[in-house]
Amino acid sequence: MSFRLALDAMGGDFGPSVVIGGLDQALKNAFLPSDSSFLIFGFESEVLPVLAQYPTVQKRASFTHTDVIVTNTSKPSWAVRQGRKSNLGQAIQSVVDDNADAVVSAGNTGAYMALSKILMKTLPGIERPAIPALVPTLKKPSLVLDLGANLECSAENLIQFALMGEALVSHLFDIPSPSVGLLNVGSEELKGHAAVQLAAQNLKNIPQFNFYGFVEGNDIMAGTTDVVVTDGFSGNIALKAIEGTARFIKQIIRDNLSSSWRGKLSYLMSKDIFQKIHNTTDPRLHNGAVFLGLRHIAVKSHGGTDALGISHAVRVAYQMSQKKLIESLEKRLSSLNQVGEIL
Amino acid sequence: MSFRLALDAMGGDFGPSVVIGGLDQALKNAFLPSDSSFLIFGFESEVLPVLAQYPTVQKRASFTHTDVIVTNTSKPSWAVRQGRKSNLGQAIQSVVDDNADAVVSAGNTGAYMALSKILMKTLPGIERPAIPALVPTLKKPSLVLDLGANLECSAENLIQFALMGEALVSHLFDIPSPSVGLLNVGSEELKGHAAVQLAAQNLKNIPQFNFYGFVEGNDIMAGTTDVVVTDGFSGNIALKAIEGTARFIKQIIRDNLSSSWRGKLSYLMSKDIFQKIHNTTDPRLHNGAVFLGLRHIAVKSHGGTDALGISHAVRVAYQMSQKKLIESLEKRLSSLNQVGEIL
Repeated sequence: MSFRLALDAMGGDFGPSVVIGGLDQALKNAFLPSDSSFLIFGFESEVLPVLAQYPTVQKRASFTHTDVIVTNTSKPSWAVRQGRKSNLGQAIQSVVDDNADAVVSAGNTGAYMALSKILMKTLPGIERPAIPALVPTLKKPSLVLDLGANLECSAENLIQFALMGEALVSHLFDIPSPSVGLLNVGSEELKGHAAVQLAAQNLKNIPQFNFYGFVEGNDIMAGTTDVVVTDGFSGNIALKAIEGTARFIKQIIRDNLSSSWRGKLSYLMSKDIFQKIHNTTDPRLHNGAVFLGLRHIAVKSHGGTDALGISHAVRVAYQMSQKKLIESLEKRLSSLNQVGEIL
Repeated sequence: MSFRLALDAMGGDFGPSVVIGGLDQALKNAFLPSDSSFLIFGFESEVLPVLAQYPTVQKRASFTHTDVIVTNTSKPSWAVRQGRKSNLGQAIQSVVDDNADAVVSAGNTGAYMALSKILMKTLPGIERPAIPALVPTLKKPSLVLDLGANLECSAENLIQFALMGEALVSHLFDIPSPSVGLLNVGSEELKGHAAVQLAAQNLKNIPQFNFYGFVEGNDIMAGTTDVVVTDGFSGNIALKAIEGTARFIKQIIRDNLSSSWRGKLSYLMSKDIFQKIHNTTDPRLHNGAVFLGLRHIAVKSHGGTDALGISHAVRVAYQMSQKKLIESLEKRLSSLNQVGEIL
């Protein structure tokens, strides 16, 4: 199956060199079919010289110059008013116009989400899209959402995230009825603020829906449920806290093992094992989050990632497109809704 | 210096055996002066048999039976109305009456906080107390607050937490002007919801106050600032996510190293190093959080901890009392307030 990817070349902290470099790595690592084609949007004088350095990307690419550029400080409200002609706006629109199968950007999350929502529209019954992430756990990977698209959430938002998360995990891993937990400060029923309380009451009454109840911060990595639902403020902080902790522990292992000859020898003897542990918690290998709840595929990469990270975001975009995410999501939401009338 | 500790023997998931056992460990480990005395509150038939098993504790203890017991499901509103005569209420009151220097409980956080607030009263200018925790970081330990006492926070609450956290760290570690970060979904000034925005605007205008700006989830363990301020919902989730991640990584290290003879040998060679790494992230050794903002010392232990964890909560209570926490906090808050008029 061929794959047509739209790409914002200007997004992310390091600009075109990392974005185009990531596309090159995705091809080299066979994350994409060899007949993939790319629509690349950005500022000519910055993108074309980089493109010339990557002939494998260049020969598959068609470039569009845009005068308007979304930056890390562009506000969502500005993006909606002025951003349609921007690098990001045109990349998104190319998917809506069916000139591409998916879009990837490492740019400003707020602007990207606002533009995607207005140009791509949301699925029936979905008020706001959410950003999910798959995290490795002691059991199988868990899906956590929202990661920052919606800082303040009503009970309705949380319920919609729960349904979408369930549908995505069911689709990706072919699990008939994934378990869904609602993130809270305690697992007892009386805990939490009004929105989580109301969301829990509603979720537990949906027929054919495997609602586990409240889960706590430590349940994320324990893999207690297949899906963990929370507002974007707490979700963003929790996921970054998890990344920071992984980095912290890897650092103290490195420091301690390298401070004595016995430690160094231990490390050398089992270098492959330590590398495997390192990879499990390397955020670049888990980079790429689809905006869940839109009618097309838009994938967000971390802004601070490198080419390896971008290549994984590109891989996610391809997988979501190949697996027909949107069709499957729409079907599942509609079937849950028919029974529960919740959207 | 002698130390008089009030103790709720019924709190926590495992009741008197863990609580009294923890007191015994605290004495054995010399966390307390040898002339310490204990006021113990609880249900006679459950506490006395346990007390008889620990003669070193028993000979320093005076026991009070209470008919009313606060349980894990007692609501804060019930505690305020009915709980003054309870195990927890009487333990707190004994500190107010100057029969004890501090109180420790592993019981229901909501009820404990509500009772403490009403019986002990808050410091001038402090609307709501917060629960802080010291977490190990790549630099020196950081203080994170609030950990769950206040699920929804106004800008004023966040500002008060920032001032109290700064005062506590300044006092504990003798740092003249600790740096304070406000937890948010991004470090750019325009990020976040209204309460964090307003709090940041106010904090950066306080003279002689080292406000760093916004920090993100990964900054907690990186030790970017001495103090990290957030609402109790996000703080609770972040701290538990950190604990869960530490557990996750330790587990994958164990699993991977024990799956081959080379791994096992690596582990055995540097067993002391792995033990040291394990201890750095053992939550029991960091157990015990003081309710910050009260006029007396009340320390909360994790409900799910064991006797070792309790002994560390007891150690915290002693240290706070010995270091004259309340006097110092009051002085610092009043001096910051004189300049900034912010409370």
